[in-house]
Amino acid sequence: MNKVRKRILSGMRPTGRLHIGHLLGALENWVKYQDEYDCFYMVADWHALMSEYEKPDATRQNIYDCVADWLAFGVDTSKSTVFVQSDVPEHLELYMMLSCITPLPWLERCPTYKEQLKEIKGRDLFTYAFLGYPALQAADIMLYKANIVPVGKDQLPHLELTREICRRFNHLYKTDVLIEPQAMLTKTSKLLGIDNRKMSKSYGNTIALSDEPDVIIKKTKKMITDPQRIKMDDPGHPEVCNVYSYYNVFAPEQSKEVYDWCTGAKKGCTECKSIMADVLIKRLEEGQKARKEIVRDKKTIQNILKNGAEKARDIAGKTMKEVKEAVGL
Amino acid sequence: MNKVRKRILSGMRPTGRLHIGHLLGALENWVKYQDEYDCFYMVADWHALMSEYEKPDATRQNIYDCVADWLAFGVDTSKSTVFVQSDVPEHLELYMMLSCITPLPWLERCPTYKEQLKEIKGRDLFTYAFLGYPALQAADIMLYKANIVPVGKDQLPHLELTREICRRFNHLYKTDVLIEPQAMLTKTSKLLGIDNRKMSKSYGNTIALSDEPDVIIKKTKKMITDPQRIKMDDPGHPEVCNVYSYYNVFAPEQSKEVYDWCTGAKKGCTECKSIMADVLIKRLEEGQKARKEIVRDKKTIQNILKNGAEKARDIAGKTMKEVKEAVGL
Repeated sequence: MNKVRKRILSGMRPTGRLHIGHLLGALENWVKYQDEYDCFYMVADWHALMSEYEKPDATRQNIYDCVADWLAFGVDTSKSTVFVQSDVPEHLELYMMLSCITPLPWLERCPTYKEQLKEIKGRDLFTYAFLGYPALQAADIMLYKANIVPVGKDQLPHLELTREICRRFNHLYKTDVLIEPQAMLTKTSKLLGIDNRKMSKSYGNTIALSDEPDVIIKKTKKMITDPQRIKMDDPGHPEVCNVYSYYNVFAPEQSKEVYDWCTGAKKGCTECKSIMADVLIKRLEEGQKARKEIVRDKKTIQNILKNGAEKARDIAGKTMKEVKEAVGL
Repeated sequence: MNKVRKRILSGMRPTGRLHIGHLLGALENWVKYQDEYDCFYMVADWHALMSEYEKPDATRQNIYDCVADWLAFGVDTSKSTVFVQSDVPEHLELYMMLSCITPLPWLERCPTYKEQLKEIKGRDLFTYAFLGYPALQAADIMLYKANIVPVGKDQLPHLELTREICRRFNHLYKTDVLIEPQAMLTKTSKLLGIDNRKMSKSYGNTIALSDEPDVIIKKTKKMITDPQRIKMDDPGHPEVCNVYSYYNVFAPEQSKEVYDWCTGAKKGCTECKSIMADVLIKRLEEGQKARKEIVRDKKTIQNILKNGAEKARDIAGKTMKEVKEAVGL
């Protein structure tokens, strides 16, 4: 029996070196998907430009660093296709064709769009391109006829828009060339940064996957614990402690023990953080070793992206041929 | 002295065989520009899709027919670059990059946009792509660093938008890589169709550049003349006669004579139209002969468009390299 694997499309904007939030929120899942699905993992550099045009982060170095982390932490190019969005011109072609049939109000009414316009301060996102963000996502997905798209809950409206655009296209041109993708709901990482704010590169509060042990020790030392625990003798409250939430994620088997030493005032926060640092160092050790190997020759990643783009273009080109035929071009 | 010729970019949407309105409104000018300017003449097939997505007219056959007419009536590929927009992927790349920096209200407030939304009935143009129409034009023009763009008065706001986008880009990225184009105002053809409505393929009232003599005779016979001239003895009123306006355009040296025979009731409308048909047949004769030669081998135009795309990509690629460097990608 020849079972055809379903296809997954997922992407990340190239913001440079990834942090431990990326590992939990996406990368770990990506690695798991590889055995069951035909995975396409994309560096979404056009999407990055749409929101970061004033200070673009889609530089070649950021793309390189991002892909290095993917590979180091388990993305396997013998199983999955890894490529850069802008290396495959068909993305913009399909984007244009979908733009032609996408009613403006569908984009204007998109809840994430309205929310972002309201919430993101300090950047002017009231541009033509940013309005089209979900239409480009629709093109990304349907170009590869992806069946499944892993999404966090907040991204569901975007996927619904892809499905609507798909139906409108197929209906308008009396075709079934585009495939309606299904959402696969993923948990979004709730890991906070070392300052208890959302972990984000722009806050400078991340622990990067490629941080050396001494950096991890330094950063974890700064982590905020229970503010009510002044002296070591005071019993701590793990439920309000960010370090404890890290244990829950990275060493759940140790959680109970940590809870005990904290509430029982058996260990001080400094020691607790130092043990946490060791947990992280061990968790990242293998990936970091792999990363060093991967970046030893700059050409390695260049070649991977070149091959990935070729594989992607192969499929994208076929889809575009069908799409153009369906439209009658 | 090595005088660098200024560059012109102009384009037409590929609506198939051209009619005599195109000859007067654009094609005759294009032919003239060739000796003084470095001309880029583009088949704007993406633009066609933006407004004709429901029933696309940017088919390969329409593109072929359109280019055949260009060449037949004097566009000379030894002087000018003739290419199809979608054959040069850099158009969509620059379009994307300009979209990222173009404020939505600039497009929403564009007077032609508002007018077209209001006036064009029977087609739903309230789409994402149609809003971006002038941003794509901006990319078309600036991709070739065109200095001059021939425009009718109604298109002036679009060119002004290109200039604004240019300034914003150069300002934002502290560069001068994009060139602000200048408008060259052209008269728009006021030639009416044979039924006295605006000449348009969709009205079925055109005289095509490739219409055979018998077709021209048949079509001109149907032309509406002075409705008050019932009998041949009645003196006619040339100023309200569409046939007379054709004489003014295609045989101005004969205008006075026609005026006399009409107002003096010396010739009937049938004879007058028959003479008009001869004028048109002679005017188109040479071009039609050339056209037959050009389409004898289907490969001729295919090769011209292939070479044109290569020449265009050569320049477009250089611009995009500079643009990406300026943005820091």
